[in-house]
Amino acid sequence: MSRKIILYISTSIDGYIADKNGSVNWLNDIEIKEEDQSYEDFYKNIDTVVLGRKTYNQIINELAPNNYPYEDSISYIMTNKTEANTPNKIFTNENIIDLIKRLKKGRGKDIWIVGGSSTIMPLIEKNMIDEYQLAIIPILLGDGISLFQKISSKINLKTQNSYMKNGIIFTTYTKN
Amino acid sequence: MSRKIILYISTSIDGYIADKNGSVNWLNDIEIKEEDQSYEDFYKNIDTVVLGRKTYNQIINELAPNNYPYEDSISYIMTNKTEANTPNKIFTNENIIDLIKRLKKGRGKDIWIVGGSSTIMPLIEKNMIDEYQLAIIPILLGDGISLFQKISSKINLKTQNSYMKNGIIFTTYTKN
Repeated sequence: MSRKIILYISTSIDGYIADKNGSVNWLNDIEIKEEDQSYEDFYKNIDTVVLGRKTYNQIINELAPNNYPYEDSISYIMTNKTEANTPNKIFTNENIIDLIKRLKKGRGKDIWIVGGSSTIMPLIEKNMIDEYQLAIIPILLGDGISLFQKISSKINLKTQNSYMKNGIIFTTYTKN
Repeated sequence: MSRKIILYISTSIDGYIADKNGSVNWLNDIEIKEEDQSYEDFYKNIDTVVLGRKTYNQIINELAPNNYPYEDSISYIMTNKTEANTPNKIFTNENIIDLIKRLKKGRGKDIWIVGGSSTIMPLIEKNMIDEYQLAIIPILLGDGISLFQKISSKINLKTQNSYMKNGIIFTTYTKN
């Protein structure tokens, strides 16, 4: 079995991954009462993450300024600017479709598409996401950056499982 | 306890209640293998339905031309045209907010907001939906009529329960 391309992401009930200022601080509205190992269970099967430059900036500047959370994976950061790579951070302007096809052929654990929308959408459009792991946060944000943009033809998915933790609905869908 | 205002509706994973032609025939993609009493369990607590003229037209012309499904409830049909009422069908141009406030004060079972988007959205905006019962169909439609439009301030909801039947995720949220 080849490595899977996984979209693992939180959205509001109305489908936003960030508010209109690009912030995800509404995620802090969730009151954590139940122990939840969802992230750890997911991340242990990942060794490669792919993210856009804006999402990367948000992580290193706001969300986790002192502790890059994917240090133990290889990060591919999609950018048009030329930047010095490090051993585990690769800044690239390669076409996202070509990159993912190439990574999928390689050996390793699964590949996490972290975001944002412009990194995710070409992969949905081409039906290249093997697994959607969506965490629906019980909030109507009302405005912001939508996870899903228009795609040219419908995609039927298969619901693998769903469970609730701390009011969040976690659902896994796979390609049919 | 006063009667509840309930939004009970199916959407695609990407939040569409109808495709771009207004059709819901993609709901037929669902393969029914497990017995599902969700609708019957829900509808037995309803005695009033509220729907827009376009949704009503779709029901009587396309979805159920010979058997209006809410015959045993009182239907309020939101329209700007003057039309003759029947004992259980009331055509009204009353403001939806005023109508719902008035109905909620009355006696009876719960009130179902059937659709479409222009009937639903003012009630979400004013946080007048007591209960959201959403059925998420495992399909990315890619385009169409979105359930949720913009609202002016965020609304935190409380997740009551969630279960999966025939690949559909049914989740109930209530006002906090």
